[in-house]
Amino acid sequence: MNDQKNPWTLLSRSRKYENDWIAVDEHQVRHARGFSSAYGVVHNKQVGTQTIAIDQEGRVCLVGQFRYPQGLYSWELPAGGGGPDQLPLDTAKRELREETGLIANRWLPLLQLTVAGSISDSRVFCFAAWELEATERKLDPQEVIQRQNVSFKEAVGSALNGTIRDSASVAALLALGRKLDAGDLPADLAAALR
Amino acid sequence: MNDQKNPWTLLSRSRKYENDWIAVDEHQVRHARGFSSAYGVVHNKQVGTQTIAIDQEGRVCLVGQFRYPQGLYSWELPAGGGGPDQLPLDTAKRELREETGLIANRWLPLLQLTVAGSISDSRVFCFAAWELEATERKLDPQEVIQRQNVSFKEAVGSALNGTIRDSASVAALLALGRKLDAGDLPADLAAALR
Repeated sequence: MNDQKNPWTLLSRSRKYENDWIAVDEHQVRHARGFSSAYGVVHNKQVGTQTIAIDQEGRVCLVGQFRYPQGLYSWELPAGGGGPDQLPLDTAKRELREETGLIANRWLPLLQLTVAGSISDSRVFCFAAWELEATERKLDPQEVIQRQNVSFKEAVGSALNGTIRDSASVAALLALGRKLDAGDLPADLAAALR
Repeated sequence: MNDQKNPWTLLSRSRKYENDWIAVDEHQVRHARGFSSAYGVVHNKQVGTQTIAIDQEGRVCLVGQFRYPQGLYSWELPAGGGGPDQLPLDTAKRELREETGLIANRWLPLLQLTVAGSISDSRVFCFAAWELEATERKLDPQEVIQRQNVSFKEAVGSALNGTIRDSASVAALLALGRKLDAGDLPADLAAALR
């Protein structure tokens, strides 16, 4: 399509809030069409990752935790963030090990997602990981996380029926399912998932 | 699983920032395990909706706009938010008409998603809509939106290959594809998509 340039010019900005994870800035901006406005931007200090970890029987690891901002208990893919200087794959490996104790020998990038893009710069990189080895979990103290392993078919069903609601987890599970059906996955991974 | 209660007790909170779309509060909270901390919560004032609008030839309407917080041009499903007192379906109908000029006679709820749930209470309801009629668009002045109609197959391909990156758009398109393959859609919709 024709015009995909940034129509906004930044005039000034001021920081309204900051903690270890986010910073909220109000940008005064002028649009190419002439009008000006204030744009509140939620900067996510971490680049997110989510991993579908698949064991030899084709089961997928899900983690459950209470999501305070949402006010609900949420089953999701193992997730975690890293600094912008870190490779998302390295972040995903570290977070999978910390949250679940799993090390995977094989990794496949699945999706690069933008999240809540009208208010935030949050991004999530999604991976599939297999050939798993179990080690010890190293949870942060505020992480109270349960684990369960479910069949891939059940995980996809959970993504469709609302048992899993996190947008990036749903997208990643359905993307892996689509690639499986399309014959687009490494043979050993496809064999485990079927 | 066993314990899915909220482990956090709210001690106090203060508003750090607010505009027409979001409010950012810092909550002082105590965890059931004994430690206390500050939790920054981004409250999204609107409940989001996204709609896969499908015409008689099975083409899907995509809208493109520059997402200022993300710093990129983004092709997504037609989206928009409404107040918490509004039914998501009513919001989706209004936003589809405003962004694309389309009215749909048939609607199917697809997904209810949480978005950026570690920092925000954002939610998105996704729908499929078909039996379309074209009317006039009514864009807000800051909405500079392009439109294109692509085949459903191309839209799913775009969700997988990164042409579409918005997490809820990707999830919704792949969910509709999965339901189509599973024979889980109304016959007239399935016929249009095939």
